[in-house]
Amino acid sequence: MAKIYQYDMKVPFDMSDVNGFIKMPQLILLSLQVSGMQSMELGVSDRDLLEQRNLVWIITDYDITVHRLPVFDEQITIDTQALAHNRLFCYRSFVVRDQKGQAIVEMVATFVLMDRDSRKVQSVPEEITEPYESPFEKKIRRGPRYPELNGAMEQDYHVRFYDLDMNGHVNNSKYLDWVFEVMGAEFLSRHIPKRVHLKYVKEVLPGGMITSSVEREGMVSNHLISSEGQIHAQALITWEEIDKETLWKNED
Amino acid sequence: MAKIYQYDMKVPFDMSDVNGFIKMPQLILLSLQVSGMQSMELGVSDRDLLEQRNLVWIITDYDITVHRLPVFDEQITIDTQALAHNRLFCYRSFVVRDQKGQAIVEMVATFVLMDRDSRKVQSVPEEITEPYESPFEKKIRRGPRYPELNGAMEQDYHVRFYDLDMNGHVNNSKYLDWVFEVMGAEFLSRHIPKRVHLKYVKEVLPGGMITSSVEREGMVSNHLISSEGQIHAQALITWEEIDKETLWKNED
Repeated sequence: MAKIYQYDMKVPFDMSDVNGFIKMPQLILLSLQVSGMQSMELGVSDRDLLEQRNLVWIITDYDITVHRLPVFDEQITIDTQALAHNRLFCYRSFVVRDQKGQAIVEMVATFVLMDRDSRKVQSVPEEITEPYESPFEKKIRRGPRYPELNGAMEQDYHVRFYDLDMNGHVNNSKYLDWVFEVMGAEFLSRHIPKRVHLKYVKEVLPGGMITSSVEREGMVSNHLISSEGQIHAQALITWEEIDKETLWKNED
Repeated sequence: MAKIYQYDMKVPFDMSDVNGFIKMPQLILLSLQVSGMQSMELGVSDRDLLEQRNLVWIITDYDITVHRLPVFDEQITIDTQALAHNRLFCYRSFVVRDQKGQAIVEMVATFVLMDRDSRKVQSVPEEITEPYESPFEKKIRRGPRYPELNGAMEQDYHVRFYDLDMNGHVNNSKYLDWVFEVMGAEFLSRHIPKRVHLKYVKEVLPGGMITSSVEREGMVSNHLISSEGQIHAQALITWEEIDKETLWKNED
């Protein structure tokens, strides 16, 4: 078993959507912060990686299962640990727990190391996986098949200056923003995702526009983030209608 | 002197822009969280206000002076206190300090209390200002005159689902996002604001589009956020060119 890092927090107001649920892109941002804290604690911080080896962590896949979304002001704990790694991929789990210790959101993220300048994936040195006590696992985990989109609904988005992080890259959570936004406010205010598969294919560059496409069949939606014929990300989401009766607040 | 609430933090990666400076809209978001923490500590939390009196705090004006922007990984302290209040307006200061205690960003925000349902401004009950030890000040502080815009540059933005907070309102920091984004990535990567005046006129409603307009003369820019002829916010910003030599990181 790898080392577990734990982070406690209350869901703040600005992370909560109109129904009081945590905003999913914010949850992804948060999980990255928490894994960054573990790296720092273990003496293999993002900053060290960059300064000493010119390497940055890149996420290639998310697999998210939502049993229940945390709500505004709820006390939650995020547990994270390295699940396993092979020569190229590092798998990390995040478990969001409620106050009773019940797992309410479970995420597995796939990380790779990239050279900052060449933008090429590097094999993972043992000195980096060791502090996490990450077990080696020969098997490469595969994501789902993302179906092709035909006659999808589309929406264009500017890539904004503040979408960029310090390395000039579009933050991971932004892709999920675009994937979700294309569903429209009406749909998003009535549904929550139960399962999210997200695959990053190619970085979105600063300055341009991207197209967020979606095809929905019932409670399943297929997504594509693209620009000029180039695929940047794919997603597959299973939704569930919100039971308005169970919302914690008395809505007007 | 009113009670001072202090919050220490390091500027995290996801709050830092391509130059390593803290993103200004994030700084505004952060300051609101910090004042929310003081309210909670003093037993007059936003939640209590809403549940017991159906009131919400609304910001009408910001006056921000930037001596120097905090950078990624920098340890900063945010001090906040109620400066003064009169019958309708509460003035609150935020001071961002570096590790030496030097004030590097100073903000004054004007708050009013609004009834959640009627959306009308309410006078401020003494029981609410008392815990902060806010001094009464008869004088109403006035912001600057915002010049009219003629032949401005414009850019349209969708109001996104995730721009909305739990009350279905567009978060204060979003307006600054729109004000800044219209300057373009090229300009934003070479300049930082030294002084920002921001005035909220009328709430932006969910679902539609807004227009962000700007007219720049040298290092001063005039801004308007509007939709369908209705003014939502105005801003006046004085900029300064970034001295690339002084940036903490060796950029490529």
